[in-house]
Order: sequence, then C-alpha cells, then structure tokens
Amino acid sequence: QIDSARLWGSIHETAQFGRTAKGGVRRLTLSSEDKQVRDWFRRACEDAGLEVHTDALGSQFGLRKGRDMSKLPVGIGSHLDTQPTGGKYDGILGTLGALEVIRTLNDAGIETEAPICVVNWTNEEGSRFAPAMMASAAYVGDFTTDDILSRKDIDGTTVGQALDSIGYRGDKPVGFQKLGCFVELHIEQGPILEAEGKTIGVVDSGQGVLWYDGKISGFESHAGSTPMPLRRDALATLSEIVLAMEAIAKKHGPNAVGTIGEAVIANPSRNVIPGEIAFTMDCRSADGAIMDALDRDLRAAIAEIAARRKVEVKIDLVWRKAPTHFDPKLIAAVENAAKTLGYSSRRITSGAGHDACNLNTVMPAAMVFVPCKDGISHNELEDATQPDCAAGTNVLMHTVLAIAGV
Amino acid sequence: QIDSARLWGSIHETAQFGRTAKGGVRRLTLSSEDKQVRDWFRRACEDAGLEVHTDALGSQFGLRKGRDMSKLPVGIGSHLDTQPTGGKYDGILGTLGALEVIRTLNDAGIETEAPICVVNWTNEEGSRFAPAMMASAAYVGDFTTDDILSRKDIDGTTVGQALDSIGYRGDKPVGFQKLGCFVELHIEQGPILEAEGKTIGVVDSGQGVLWYDGKISGFESHAGSTPMPLRRDALATLSEIVLAMEAIAKKHGPNAVGTIGEAVIANPSRNVIPGEIAFTMDCRSADGAIMDALDRDLRAAIAEIAARRKVEVKIDLVWRKAPTHFDPKLIAAVENAAKTLGYSSRRITSGAGHDACNLNTVMPAAMVFVPCKDGISHNELEDATQPDCAAGTNVLMHTVLAIAGV
Ligand SMILES: NC(=O)NCCC(=O)O
Ligand SMILES: NC(=O)NCCC(=O)O
Repeated sequence: QIDSARLWGSIHETAQFGRTAKGGVRRLTLSSEDKQVRDWFRRACEDAGLEVHTDALGSQFGLRKGRDMSKLPVGIGSHLDTQPTGGKYDGILGTLGALEVIRTLNDAGIETEAPICVVNWTNEEGSRFAPAMMASAAYVGDFTTDDILSRKDIDGTTVGQALDSIGYRGDKPVGFQKLGCFVELHIEQGPILEAEGKTIGVVDSGQGVLWYDGKISGFESHAGSTPMPLRRDALATLSEIVLAMEAIAKKHGPNAVGTIGEAVIANPSRNVIPGEIAFTMDCRSADGAIMDALDRDLRAAIAEIAARRKVEVKIDLVWRKAPTHFDPKLIAAVENAAKTLGYSSRRITSGAGHDACNLNTVMPAAMVFVPCKDGISHNELEDATQPDCAAGTNVLMHTVLAIAGV
Repeated sequence: QIDSARLWGSIHETAQFGRTAKGGVRRLTLSSEDKQVRDWFRRACEDAGLEVHTDALGSQFGLRKGRDMSKLPVGIGSHLDTQPTGGKYDGILGTLGALEVIRTLNDAGIETEAPICVVNWTNEEGSRFAPAMMASAAYVGDFTTDDILSRKDIDGTTVGQALDSIGYRGDKPVGFQKLGCFVELHIEQGPILEAEGKTIGVVDSGQGVLWYDGKISGFESHAGSTPMPLRRDALATLSEIVLAMEAIAKKHGPNAVGTIGEAVIANPSRNVIPGEIAFTMDCRSADGAIMDALDRDLRAAIAEIAARRKVEVKIDLVWRKAPTHFDPKLIAAVENAAKTLGYSSRRITSGAGHDACNLNTVMPAAMVFVPCKDGISHNELEDATQPDCAAGTNVLMHTVLAIAGV
C-alpha cells in the first residue's frame, strides 16, 4: 500500500506553483510556474534515488534500476502542466502517483526485475502550443523534434524559445529513453465512475481527436448605418458554425463531441460589424467512422453557411489523433490489480486524450482512472478524494509490480 | 467656393497620423496618433487666426471673431479620432472641412456677423471609451465631466489618465464655449446617396442608439470528456444571442439594426468549453417605439436562451441615445445652400450617431452628408471623392454664412 498522506501532501504542495484565487492551478506548459514544478519534481526524483534526464522537448525521465537491466523499463507517469484555468489533479495525480510508487517501493526495499521509469511529459494540455500530448507524440515519431520545437504560442514564442527561457531544453534526444510499456494513472475527467459508485476505471479505449484552425473573413462596416441585409458579419457566421457543430455532434452522439474553445475578433469595436475572426474547433469520437462523419458534416455545414453569408471561411485540420485501443494484456493487468486490492471497477473509454494514447501506438499501454467530483475537469473546481487518489496509485503500483516482476 | 485641393491636401496630410497598411487610419481617441493630429490641428487653427482653447475633456475649440461678439458663435466641426480599423474621412472631413471654411473666409476677407467656432470633439467613435460622442454628451449635460473622466478603456486606463498622457486635459471647463447652433459635415457612411446619384444629404434625423454590456457565465469543462447534453457553453449561448439579435433587428426592419461588435472568451483554450464571455450589443432605430421593442424582444430572447442553456446572462444598458430630429430651420438652410450651389440633394436619416445629435438637444443643429464609396465606413477601405468632399464643404460654408450673417 502506498502512503496516502504523502501522496496527498505532494499534490497539495505542488499545487502552490500557479495556484489561482479560486483554488485551481494555472500552470501553462514551459511557463515560469511550470519551471517551479519541474524543479520540485526533479529534486523529488533525485531524492528518491532516480537517475533523472531531460530530453530535447523538456520531458523528464527518472529511472529506477531493475535487477535485469537488459529489460526495457516500465514507464509510468503523466504531466504537470495545466490548462489556463486548470485543476490540481489532471496529469498531476498520474505524475506524483508514479513518484509515490517509487517512494513506496524504496521504503519497502522492493527491487523489481525490470527497471521503472517515471515520466513528466511536456505540454500534454495543448492550450499554449498545439497539438496536445506534443512531447509523447514526438516520442512515438508522429512529429519530428524540429517540427515541435518550431510550434508557436499565441504570442509567437516557439517551443524552443520557451524551453530555453526556463532552462529545460534537455541534452538527451527525444526517444533516448526506451520504454517497454507505459501505464498512466489519471482522474476520469467525466461523470461515470462517480455516478456508478466505482473506484477504479479500467481504461480500454480513448476517443480520437480532430483539431482545426479556422478563419472567417467577412467585411467590417458601421454598426449603425449598414442595413441588416447588406452585412457580411464574421461573428454571425461563427455563431452559425458553433450551433451547427453542436447539432452535428449531437446527431452523431452519444459517441461524439464538438467544441469551439477559442474565437478572437480582430480589432473589435462596439460599433463595427466584426470582419475577421480566428477560431479553433475540437471534435472527438471513439469511433473512427464517426470522426470521418463529423469532419464531413462540419465541412459541408461551414461551406453552406459561408456561401449563404457571402463570407470566406478557411478550415485547416491541424491534428488528427485516431481512436485508441489499449493493450489487452495491460488492461487485464490493471483490472486484476483492482480486483486483488478489492476496489470496485469497470471498463471505461477515455473522453480526453492522454500521453498513454500516443505511447500505445508503439508499445503496450494502459490507463487507470479514478473518479473526479461531478466529472468536472479543465476547471479550477476540479476535485478528487484522497482515498480515490490513493486507490488509483495502489492499482498503478500493483500493475507495475505484475509487469516488471518482483 | 472653398479650395478643393487645399481641403484634399489637409485630409491626406493628416491621414499619415495612424495610417494603416491597408491605407486606412488607426487613431484611437487620446492615443499618441490622436495627439499628433491634435497638435497639427491646433497649429493649423492658430495659423488661420483662430483663438484655440481645449476643454477639460480635450475637445478643441477655435474661435473666429464676428462683427457682433454679443452673438453666440455658429459651431462647425466634427472629430479626428477613428475606429481601430477606420477610414480617412469619418469625422475628419467635417473637422478639416470646418477649417477649410475658415481659411476660405480669411482668403476672401469675409467677416461674419456672428463669430464662428471650429470644434474637434474628443472620442466621437466610442471604441476606446464608451459612450460614443462622449465629449459632446458632457457638453450638453448628459453626463458630468467627472463621470466621463473616470470611464475606462479595456486596459483600465481612465479618460483622465489618457488625457494627461498626451497633454490634452485642457484648462477650460466643459461648456466654457457657448455655441448658438451647430452644423456638422460628414460622409454618409451608408449607400443611399451614391445609389441615387445625389451629391448632398440634407440630414433631417438620426437613429437612436442602445448600447449594452453583456456577460455570460456558463461552466468551463473538458472539450473531450463532457457529453454534449451536460454542457453549459458560454460561446454556444452567445451564438444564439447573436442570431436572435439578427432576427429581431430584421423583424423590426428596415428601420432597425443590431450588432455584437465585441466578444471576449475568458481564459480561452482549444480543449476547454468556454465558461465566461464578455460582449457588447449595439441596437438602433430612428423610431423610439422600435427602440423600445428591440430592447424588449432582446431581453426576452436572452432570458429564454439563458434559462434553456442553464447559464447566467447579465445585460447592462450602458447608453441610450434617443432618436434625433434636427432643427427645421437649419435643415432648410442646408437644403437651400445645396440648391443655391446647384448640387443635387435629398433628405436623409443618419444611421450613425454624431456629435451634432447631442448638440441638437440643447441648440439648433443640422448636418450635411456627402456620399462615400459603396456606403462603406468603419473600415480601412472607406473612400470618398474630392469633388463630393468639396461640395459638402461648400454647402457647409454657405449654410454658415446664411446663419452667421455677412
Ligand atoms: N487529459 C487531458 O485533459 N488532456 C488534454 C488533451 C485533451 O484535450 O484531451
Ligand atoms: N459617425 C460615427 O461613425 N460615429 C460613431 C458613433 C456611432 O457608432 O454611431
């Protein structure tokens, strides 16, 4: 059994790095707050006897030796970055839970057959730089390191510049640390476990993701003197797109969602009809065929709206992540650990993307979910209980022990 | 006849202060570009022999003596501030046209009975600080000077601070310069004169304006893991409000318009359902009863949308300007001047608000419109011809001579 109080202490100690007035965390990837938590994490890993290295995209790897160093390490961990108005558990539980597993094994003097590697992946959230799960995507070869280094945030700062500014451009090439498999603990970020009174979610699949950048070019004109029928209003166009996306996602539901999270009017003024808007779209489904249908329906709806309103709408697909089907043997190992420990559990699909979804494309991967309050995540009110966090960490540890061998 | 080339030269010389890449002007009120044009204007007025004073809200007054100084001056002028993506004529034609009238009278050695006062009103546009036509509103007593001085822009800078930062908080109290009447020359900012091939618009009325500040409070949550039916999406709410406003304005049309010009998502992120949006609304009609109906219908629609989507929407009416009915005698004077000069003309309603609309509440006021290309305004592509600008300025001069007496 892991040390529940120590885990809880770590979570709440690091929550100070970027704490918000509402009790959440604002710790955008590669920000000064992210540097603070990275420094904390590196020291904690070193204190736990791990050999810590950082790769060229800033991901941190802490290796615990195994009896058989010819075996590839079992990877565990998650991420420490958050949304602009994020919570204290999303990613953090999985990373500090992995650290807690190491500390517990150390205290118990348990040596494993295979080594264990604790990982903190850079920019899982994807709010400062797109795509989300950027560093693990480069790790599995979906993008080159140089491509990712050149990605820009809204202020034009590149990933490379941001890494340098906090001193976290590591000296190891991406992929330097080979892993044999990866297991990630995370809060569910949805309402199912709580609603069904289950402690552990055995994640068997994950939704695919479509991310788009959009731009609407209408025509700026005077709010008072431009008759309604003559307008080419970019905001009215966006409004129709938002509602069309909502309707399309519902039509393909319940296994589909669609969100416009960012929309910025260029040079806004109260008495100017908006002429230009940049926006993003996020569509998801666990079913690849539904993802294709979402893409098709959305493009058709946007084309119709743009033509009718005589505005130009450009849509770029900037990221496509296929649905994830986790490794059956690892899924069984998680399920078995939950059963052995006496926790109630159910199979579950992840609504969110996770680094484990990327890793699953090149190695066996799996995930452990624990409930979060009201299913709320990407919100400062995100919450989870100490017993649930401890339970998930225990399942993670027992899964690792089963895979790594004692 | 005024000097068309000199007028055109002044317009294009001052267009350098805030010129944009697309050939428009970005000269937000009380910005450094506004200081440049104010300095230019003060010097030009002084060179034309005017006695120039600035009031506590930065409005500039240049007085030309009349034979009978017991008579109140005839006020002429407009504004030199622009929209963020504004044109070279909106306000500028009326202010530099007024200067051109003075220069022409000087050249011709014409003395008028009543004095003439050229005015550049502060913040007519209303995009940096609300309301629009702020300084003329204070002049007529709609707001106190202190109230206006405390208004803030989006960065929290007050009007008072902005005035001080460019050295234009004048030593004269607002209202120090009494005026007997006010005549404002302006581009139409709409398509009617051009479509009908008329050179002069004799403005007999102006639309009333309703300005609102709105705030939507939904609930931030995860774009991937939050099922569509559980969302309280602030952007989807705004979208329905935008389309409802459009439908309501069309329903009450053609004599009604409605615009949402600003909308800002708080802490936006691609994979977060928008939780909070601040926005503005601008509704207009030349008919007071329709204004009331717009307000009523809009509030009802918003209440229905908010209740159905389980979000909170707050609406504050921050400005209400009643429809304007200009002074019949001055309207006739403008019409007569156009006729005498041989220009085609028609009566017209102003879609935009103007300082003359404020002044009309305490003194006789009127306006002269000239066509602008395709009715486009509040756009960098705003355009007008040299002959039309000269024609409008001639009508302004002859109207002034008729009122002031030679
Ligand atoms: N787990 C999580 O919130 N990941 C962020 C990437 C996503 O949008 O799914
Ligand atoms: N004339 C003009 O564009 N005024 C700005 C104020 C308004 O929105 O009507």
